[in-house]
Order: sequence, then structure tokens, then C-alpha cells
Amino acid sequence: MKKLVALLLLISALSFNAPVYRADEGMWTFDNPPLKHWKKRYHFEPTAAWLENVRLASVRLNDGGSGGFVSPDGLLVTNQHVASGQLQKVSTKTKDYTKDGFYAPTNAEELKCPDLECNVLVSYENVTERVQSAVTSGATDKQASAQRKAVMAQIEKESTQQTGLKSDVISFYSGGEYWLYRHKKYTDIRLVFAAEEQIAFFGGDYDNFTYPRYDLDVAFFRAYENDRPARTPHYFKWSATGPVDGEFVLASGSPGSTARLLTVAQLAYQREVGNPLQKQVWTARLNALQEYAKGGEEQARQAGAGIRSFNNSLKRLVGQQEGLLNPRMFAKKEAEEQALKDELAKKPDLQKLYAPAWQSIAAAYAQLPAMANRLAFSTLAASRLGDIAAKLVRYAEEMQKPNEQRYDEFRDSRLESFKFAVLSPAPIYPQMEEVLLTAWLAEGLKTLGANDPFIKAALQGATPAEAARRAIQGTQLAEVKARKALLEGGADAIAKSTDPLIVMARNVEPIIRELRAWNEEKILNVEASAGEKLAKARFAVYGKSVPPDANFNLRLSYGRVLGYEEDTTLVPFKTTFYGLYDRAESFNEKPPYDLPERYRAGRTKLALATPLNFVYSADTIGGNSGSPVINRNAELVGLNFDSNIQKLSNRYWYIEEEEGSRAVAVHSAGILEALRQLYHTPALVKELMGR
Amino acid sequence: MKKLVALLLLISALSFNAPVYRADEGMWTFDNPPLKHWKKRYHFEPTAAWLENVRLASVRLNDGGSGGFVSPDGLLVTNQHVASGQLQKVSTKTKDYTKDGFYAPTNAEELKCPDLECNVLVSYENVTERVQSAVTSGATDKQASAQRKAVMAQIEKESTQQTGLKSDVISFYSGGEYWLYRHKKYTDIRLVFAAEEQIAFFGGDYDNFTYPRYDLDVAFFRAYENDRPARTPHYFKWSATGPVDGEFVLASGSPGSTARLLTVAQLAYQREVGNPLQKQVWTARLNALQEYAKGGEEQARQAGAGIRSFNNSLKRLVGQQEGLLNPRMFAKKEAEEQALKDELAKKPDLQKLYAPAWQSIAAAYAQLPAMANRLAFSTLAASRLGDIAAKLVRYAEEMQKPNEQRYDEFRDSRLESFKFAVLSPAPIYPQMEEVLLTAWLAEGLKTLGANDPFIKAALQGATPAEAARRAIQGTQLAEVKARKALLEGGADAIAKSTDPLIVMARNVEPIIRELRAWNEEKILNVEASAGEKLAKARFAVYGKSVPPDANFNLRLSYGRVLGYEEDTTLVPFKTTFYGLYDRAESFNEKPPYDLPERYRAGRTKLALATPLNFVYSADTIGGNSGSPVINRNAELVGLNFDSNIQKLSNRYWYIEEEEGSRAVAVHSAGILEALRQLYHTPALVKELMGR
Repeated sequence: MKKLVALLLLISALSFNAPVYRADEGMWTFDNPPLKHWKKRYHFEPTAAWLENVRLASVRLNDGGSGGFVSPDGLLVTNQHVASGQLQKVSTKTKDYTKDGFYAPTNAEELKCPDLECNVLVSYENVTERVQSAVTSGATDKQASAQRKAVMAQIEKESTQQTGLKSDVISFYSGGEYWLYRHKKYTDIRLVFAAEEQIAFFGGDYDNFTYPRYDLDVAFFRAYENDRPARTPHYFKWSATGPVDGEFVLASGSPGSTARLLTVAQLAYQREVGNPLQKQVWTARLNALQEYAKGGEEQARQAGAGIRSFNNSLKRLVGQQEGLLNPRMFAKKEAEEQALKDELAKKPDLQKLYAPAWQSIAAAYAQLPAMANRLAFSTLAASRLGDIAAKLVRYAEEMQKPNEQRYDEFRDSRLESFKFAVLSPAPIYPQMEEVLLTAWLAEGLKTLGANDPFIKAALQGATPAEAARRAIQGTQLAEVKARKALLEGGADAIAKSTDPLIVMARNVEPIIRELRAWNEEKILNVEASAGEKLAKARFAVYGKSVPPDANFNLRLSYGRVLGYEEDTTLVPFKTTFYGLYDRAESFNEKPPYDLPERYRAGRTKLALATPLNFVYSADTIGGNSGSPVINRNAELVGLNFDSNIQKLSNRYWYIEEEEGSRAVAVHSAGILEALRQLYHTPALVKELMGR
Repeated sequence: MKKLVALLLLISALSFNAPVYRADEGMWTFDNPPLKHWKKRYHFEPTAAWLENVRLASVRLNDGGSGGFVSPDGLLVTNQHVASGQLQKVSTKTKDYTKDGFYAPTNAEELKCPDLECNVLVSYENVTERVQSAVTSGATDKQASAQRKAVMAQIEKESTQQTGLKSDVISFYSGGEYWLYRHKKYTDIRLVFAAEEQIAFFGGDYDNFTYPRYDLDVAFFRAYENDRPARTPHYFKWSATGPVDGEFVLASGSPGSTARLLTVAQLAYQREVGNPLQKQVWTARLNALQEYAKGGEEQARQAGAGIRSFNNSLKRLVGQQEGLLNPRMFAKKEAEEQALKDELAKKPDLQKLYAPAWQSIAAAYAQLPAMANRLAFSTLAASRLGDIAAKLVRYAEEMQKPNEQRYDEFRDSRLESFKFAVLSPAPIYPQMEEVLLTAWLAEGLKTLGANDPFIKAALQGATPAEAARRAIQGTQLAEVKARKALLEGGADAIAKSTDPLIVMARNVEPIIRELRAWNEEKILNVEASAGEKLAKARFAVYGKSVPPDANFNLRLSYGRVLGYEEDTTLVPFKTTFYGLYDRAESFNEKPPYDLPERYRAGRTKLALATPLNFVYSADTIGGNSGSPVINRNAELVGLNFDSNIQKLSNRYWYIEEEEGSRAVAVHSAGILEALRQLYHTPALVKELMGR
């Protein structure tokens, strides 16, 4: 169906005003917010203190989402779906907090999360010059990479020693800039409240990435320090009324990954090889989980969070790939690249320096398809135990090297977080692990063939089912203390271990390392060098008017609360509790449109006209889930939790507001109404509202 | 946006059952219902008595819609939008029943409609052989047309004399069949109830042709005979519960016009010339009405029904044209035609007889573009007074001819209905008439040029504004008695009239007649002869497995109450009052999403989960508005009032159920709930429900 735009223009006698502004691109770093643009278009001029407060109130949840402090006592809000991994981990066969939700009326009843780390961006520093100048003139890509790595490790170490903060040097603009980011880290995070998944994810995978929407996708955690609620003087005040139609809002969160600065060669690779392969990988893992979930209610509970996550990833991936397959959209990227090339051609000195980068990348990527399947399938990470085993083996080997020569994830600055994850006491379900590992090895065998080095090393002549059974049934790694012993035992303990999963991990490790070396040398190092050149070319032509690609670090997005046109009609800027009941009743509550009993019984208590969800025009992507949506007073008016389907391909490009592309948020008033009337959480409400 | 069908298939673990049946094509005549198909697919085997009861309970409203008797005392239900023309005509400056709705608690308070005629199909008879055999061998198309006309007039006359019923010989299958239809006619129709337009047309033109929908598009009339409620023993019982998900239902109504049997040449003409021209015509008329409506509240009231109607027509036209412009869809029609040609090629004798018909039509249509503007703009019918004047002038001339030589609309069998319409006491608004006629003549002048014969005859050297002012301000035709005098005065009275509008009509009449003669000779007669051949070719190849194109006569459509997929999600089979309030609140009641005060004040009285609208998969089109939607017990479970946007191009082809094409109906339970809780109409409810 196409929009009958011509007709709507024709018959414009109705009283709606068409939007006149253009939407606003960009997930901006805090060092370079679009202040001029905000001032001009929205008369918004935040002070430095405003920006600092927002930054310090914003939280990255390392499970893959965002959140924000909403009280001075460490209370932080995020989506139920961001919390779902932890919910799954604190649930048991008899207490299913995913299904039933959770509320702790007192601090004492809050549930400690086994392995949730949260980060707050405390400070940042531009270290581009120091990193780039460490590369000696005439260095090969490989040498340059080693030189950059060494200086980055050095900077991180200095910072950690000076500040005690988690310090990472991060590349922006494909290596055009390097920044030292210092995060305050919280690892004692406790669950305060979670909505039932049935209402947090009302409409299930069908309604995921759609709007109008009626989801109370909300959870509250509390950060602790020294076994006491953390002092968090920077927090977002909760808005009881939420945003009005057309209001300027911002989302402060950690978008995971965009790929808008990729070259056409890189995009073509994604379209032809990368995305289809990713789809195969996720589909294989999803299928295994779904198969396992069929075993019974408890199996379904164990597999639930994973299934939801893969369904979500696949739906997004399909949408992104549809975007790449759209010739009109792809042609835009080609035109964009050509425009930069044309501009560069006007500056011969720069052209000579930078233009070869496109060819370098294209040449590198030409080698990738032949290796892509091996790179994708040569891993044990599809099983959590397999992943732990591989990490222990790798850790032991890496720790024998000096800091600056290690794989990135084993640099000193990252070891605490690494250990926190590997030693997580979260429950492990060996039967599920076995199913997952079996399916994974089977898919690898099917794809790579029996003579593939990884397959041979992993299976040692057995079938995938036999190999997985032997490794998982025989391993001790489900026990934290076994992991701890191996972690502390070093290379010697690993070498001597007879744990069958460690043995499997040891067997495949040389192949994984070889592939990683190939990938670094042939692809990543080239990308790093060429990416820096292209970034410099862009800076030379366009300045810093374009934000860098998202990389799961803190960004500010912004836009307006705004409905849109779809087909010939209007989609409203918000939904209400009325709509929740309409959709449930319209399907006769057939799942996934059934309601939690609390909502069925409590409907007469609710003010049904209270807004539940709303849409706004900010540029967001996965990772922004749980981002506080705030007004110009830095009050929390909503909680980002999704995008509509018009926005699905925004990984590769910004999609105009006029195309109906919108972020979807839970409305702050809707959360409050549900907490008050349905969940009876006076302490939580009082902490949020001060009364 | 495309459907992520592949993904949905992939992740089919959710508990919805995908529809397994294919939807069901066809608006079937009562002589040839798809009994075998119903039996096989739906285990539905109606008796002859069932079919007769449904036919006799079904009502055609000659304002352009359908309805059904719902009590033995002449009570009939239809849409508010079908009633809107009459509502406008019985309203005044101080009593606006369109805006405020209407209810007559007693028969005495019912409001007589000025010019609504309703027809019930009492009997029908196949007269194909008699009509076709009247054409002598070797007759030219023109001769054949005259011969057919003569025999049709004869058949109608005989039938009228025998039965006293309104008798019409009607062509089906482009002349493949001729049927004598006898209708019982009701001309004393009184208004019993109408919902406020704001709720009948909630969401206005934006939501028109969309779903989910929340419209109480309902009105009740009562047929009278001899000043007493008509006895209507055949009527639909009102279902208090309405249909369930997946239920087999039928719609009995009078779809206006489809064009599915057109040749590719005819379709191409519509695409290139016909539809764009139609759009120009309607847009010009709409613009004039909208301009007039800006004059004030009373002007807006006068123009309201017309504006709504043109908006509706234009939205549908744009959708139809988009269908024709879709290369994939158009290619299907080409393939269909080619398939018939190929089949015919296997039967050389038939091929010789019928295949030249395609070429005849193509040759005829090749002449049409050059004449199309003249044919479209050479008329005074854009103004109601202009239309009356033209009809009076034409009537006087035609009545001098013998019955069988007159224009179709002046055949004896049709004169009663003609006079009923021309002598309607409905109010006329001369200022609006002047605006409409001015705009129309101006558009004609712009399109045809100052030297065009019609324009010269109409304007007589004046400007459009001057000519229209003189004609409208000077005419007496707003008075019924002036029309009656001219009607009864015959050719002499017309010839002598100095009424300036009659003078204008007299001046243009020869040009209109000349164009009509051209059109009949060059196009219509060729179509009639060639159409008959193509119909016979189709019958020879496919039998009568395909229903004839709709022609505003009674048909049965059927299908299932059934939601559908849109983008990646599900659209439910029904909506509820909850959804009405959600949509109103979601737009903060900004028009056209504002609620009548009755709904605002009465929301706590309603059982909000009561279904309001639903969708079903039957094949319907404009004219089906107000069709009773019935279950297999012939109980009324809904009232058809619209189609969704997926169905908009179904004028040219049947759109598969799988494409999400649906008819939209008001739910019988929703109507009942509103009547009981909001409108307080105990007498009406009692008449419907027997209690």
C-alpha cells in the first residue's frame, strides 16, 4: 500500500496541522551536542550543568540496555525487557518473576542480580592526537594497529591508576577520533520492581517494532555500594504528566551499533553475505531454544528470555536487510559516497591522501566472503558453558602477555568486568546447554563440512550430539568455584584440566586464534587505517556536523513527541489504557493478547484515559532500550523501549520523520497510574514522587 | 513497508492459527448463488425459502446504498452515511439531524424523507433469449441496439401491466445475459433514528477506508404504505451477540459497480484518461462545496453531505487508480485476457465468432480520449437545479417519442421514479447552487475552451459567474410547483418558458444530445455487441463460474469474520468501545477524533468490551453500504459500512483474503449497546429484540 499523499494534500480541509519541521538526525556524544541546532529549532539552550546532570543520571546496563537514576538513593529505571536476563537468572522453577513480575516493598526484600554491571560516564577526554601520533610514519596496517593498541593500553592504565575509574579508550568515526571514557561501575544491582512480561511485552513478537502499542515495559533496579543504596545525587525527576503533543524531548542512552558511515563495499558485503549469515546463525540458535522450550513449562521458562531476544534480533535484522535490499535506499548510499568522492576531488592533496581508502576497504572485503562462514561458526559461544570454557582458556593464554599486547578484552582496564561476568553465580541449565551446543555444532558441521579444522577439533570424530553430551555432562563449569579455580590457576591449571568442556575449548582455541589473526590482519587493521582516512576526509569536507556511529556509549538523541501518517490515516502521538483493553478484547485475549490477572481484575480502578505509550521522532536504535526520555527540565517523561517498523532499517541510514519513523516509549504517567492503582507500591511511588 | 512474512513463518511458535482457507470472490445474483462452494467450504446449504426470505428482507435505497428490514413493521436499517442525504434534506438551519442525530420514540414523530425511494427485489426472470433473438442477423451495432431497446421496453411494459411492479430489463455480463427484475417500490420512507455524524463517521475522511475502526454508522428508517407502517413479513432478526471470530457470514446488498470484466483496452483507458478525468471532475465539485462551506456554520451544514460524499469518492478513486498503476496488478489483467484468448484459440469456430470483439472495443476506445473532456463537462448536473432543468427539458422532448425509442431513463417503467425524484420537496439552497454552477462552468471553460459548443451555448458570452447568477437567481425551479407545471405542460411549456435556467438548459440540450448520440454509436453500442461476444466466449470457456459485474442490483457476498496480518503484526477481527475511547483520547479529541457529548458523558454506562466494528472477508464494493451482514440463520450480526484500504482497488479485480482485503461492518451488539445505554430508545430496541 502506498500513501495517498496527493489525496490528503488535496483534501486538507480537516483541522490537523501537518508537521512542518524536519526530524532530527543523530545520536550525539556529550562532547559535541548539536547546540546551535537545538537553539535555532527548539529554543533549547542547555547549560553545562544541565548536560552534566543528565550524563551523570544516565546509566548503561551492560546486559545491553540503558536506564536512568530516578532517586538520590540509587533507584534506576529501565525496561522490563532489558531486565529480562536478570529476571530469568533470579527466578526459579517455583518463582517466575518474568511471568509474575516482582516488587520489593523494602530494601531488604530487593533481589540481588547475579551479574548485572551498570556504568555511569563520569568523564571523558579526547586522546585522538596521542593515539594517532603513536603510529610511526610508514608503518604497515599491522604495525599501526599494534602501536595504537599499545598507546591505548597505556592511556587506560594511567587513567585507572589516577582515578580508580573504569577507563577505556574508544574509537569514534571509524578511527577518526579516540576518546578516553571513564565510567563509574556498579556491580551490586538489586531488583526493586518488574512488570509481568505479559504486560511489558503485550502483543509479543507480533507487536514488537509496531505502533500503536500498549506495553508497560518497565523495571526498577537499585544500585548498591558497600551493601547500602548508592548515593546518586544526579537523577531524573519523574514527571507525573508526561509530554504533550509536539513537545521537544531528548533520550539519553547507549545506542548499541549503527553502520551509517560504512562504505558501499562494506554495505554490499552486509547485504550479500553478512546479514544472511547472521540470520542463519540466530535462526539456528533460536530454533534450538524453541525446541528445548517444547519440553515443558520449566524448559520454556529457562529458554524464555533467549527466545524473546533472538526473535527481537531477527525481526530487526530482517527489517534492516529489507532496507539494504531496497534499491532506492541503497542508491542513496552510493550517491552519498560519490558526493564525498566528488568533494574530495576538488582538493587534490586530500584526495591523494584519503581516496585510496575506499579501494583498500573494497579489496579487504573481497576476501571476506570466502572466510565468513568459518569466522561465524568457529566458536563455542552459542552455549553459555562453552563460552565460559573458551574464555577461561583464552584468559590463561592472554595473561601471559604484557598488557598492551593482549586481546582488547583482556587489557587490565577490563579485567574486573571480565571476571565479574565469568564468575557470575547465575543459574545454568545443563540440559539446555547440551541442546544448544548440539544444535550449534550440527549447524557448523552442516555449514563448514566435516573436514573443517574447527569442526574436526571440536568433534574429535564424534557426532555433534555425542560431543556436546560428553562435554556438558562431564563439565564442572556450572559451579562458580570450578571456574574460579581455573581462573586463578592460570595457564598451568588450564593445560592440566581434564574437564571435557575445557578440553574441547583447548582443542578449538588454536583455530579460533588463527581466524582471529586473519580477521585482524586482513580486515580490522585495514578498516582501522582506512576508516581513519575516510573520517579525516569527512571532517575536511563536512566538519563534525555528523555524529559518529553508535558504539554502546552514552549519546543524546532528540526530537518531538509526534504522531504520523500511515496509509491514508493518522497514528496518534500516544495510546491509553483504553487501547490496551481494546486490543486484548479485540482478540478475545488470545495469546499474546491476554492480560495479566491484575489487569483484568483492576481495570475499574484505572483512569483509562491515562496515556500508556507514546511516539517521538528521536534517532535511536537497539541499546537505547530503557533510555530515559526527558523534557527540557530534565524530567523523565517516558522510557524508551522500541521503534516502530518504519524505523527498522535505521542502522544504515537516518530515516526522515516524514516517513513515519518513530521511537516508542512508555509514558511516565502510565507507569505511575499502574504503580498506584494496580501494583500498590506506595514506597516506590513515594521515592519517585516525593509523596 | 513490506510484510516480514518470511520472518513470521519462521517464528511461528505463537499460538495464532494462520488462516487456511482462501477468501471467496463474488457478488452473486440470487439466481446463481455458489451453492456447491458454500456446501463444500462452509457446510452451508440454504433452502430456497432461506434465499427468498433474505432477498425479500433486503432493501435497495436509491440514494445509493443498501439496507434490510429488521421488523415486520417496515423498520429498516442502513448506514448513517447512506441516510446522510436525507438527513441533510430534513434538517434546517436550527435542527441539524446530521450533527445531532435523531430519534422518534413514536411513529407519529418519524420524519418523512422528501425523496428516498426504496426497492425490494420481488421476482426475476431470465429474458436473455428474447432480447438477444430480437436482434436480426446482419444488423449493425446501431440497429442491434435499437432492436434490443425495443424488446426490452416491450418486456418491461408487459410486466408492469401484469404485476404492477417496477419492472426493468437489466444487462449482466456486459450483455451476456438479460434479466427482467421486478421490484416492489416504497416511496414513503420515514426517519426513525440516526446516530450523530461525529460517531457515525468518527475519524472522518482520515479513517474512511481504514481499519481498526470505531464508527456507529447506523440509521433506521420505516417504510410506509398508505400512510401506515408497511407490512414486511420478511425481515432479519437482530442478533444480540453478533458474529464470532471465523464465523461464516453473508452480506445481502446492492453493490454499485465493478469493472472486472473490462478488456485491457478499457482498463488502459480508465488508467490513462477516465480516472484522471473523473478525479478532475470530482475535485472541482468538492472544491466548490468546500469554498461555499467556509461561508459559515449554516453553509457548512448545507454542503456537509456533499463534501463527505466527494471525499469518499475521491479516496476510493485514488485507491482504484493506484491499483491500475501497479504494474504487477495490471499485468495480471493482461495475463487473464491472454489466457481467455489462448483458450479460445483452441476452438477455432468460437474464436472466429468472438475474438474480433477485443479489437472492436480497442478501436472504439481509441476514439474516446479526444471526446472525453466534452463528454464529461457538457452537463448542468453539477448543480441540483441545473440537473432538474436539464431533466425537464429532456423529458419534454423524450415524451414525444414512442416508449421503446426513448432514452432508457424515460421508458414508461421508470417514469414514476423519475417524477418522484424531480418533484422532490427537499430544500434547495440557491446560494450554494450558484456557487456550484459557477465553479462547474468555470472548470468547463478552463478545460474545453471558450469556443467549445457547450460552453458557448451555456455562457452566451457571459462569464461563468454571470451566467450562473442570472440562471440561478432568476429561476423558479426551487419551487416544486414550478417544476410540476413544466413537467405537466409538456414540450410547449418548455419551449415557451422564460425561466433563465430552463433557457440555459434548452440552449445546451442539442449539444448534450449530439454527444450522447456520439457516445452511444461509437462506444456504447460497440460495447454492447462486443461485450455480448466476450461474455459468450467466457461462458464457453469457464461456464458461469464467475459472477457478473456489479450493477446496483441485489447480490449476495460471503466470507468469514476474520482478522488479518498487516506489516508484521495482527489486526483483530473486531474492535470495542474501549478502542473508540482510546482513539479519541489518543488525539486529545482533536477533530475528527472528537466525541459527541453523549459519548463523553455516557462512557461509564457502556460495557466497554462490547464489540463495535468488525471485519470480514466478503467481496463488496460501494453500494453495499448498509448491507445487512447475516449469519447462516439469516440473523443480522452486522451492518456493512466500508472496506479497508487493502481492498480499495477491488473495482478492477478481486483481492485475495491473504492480502488483508476486508469489508468493515458495525457490530450488531455494539449498535444494541449504544441504543440501550446511550440513546435510550426502548421502543426501537423492543421492536428489534421483541423485548
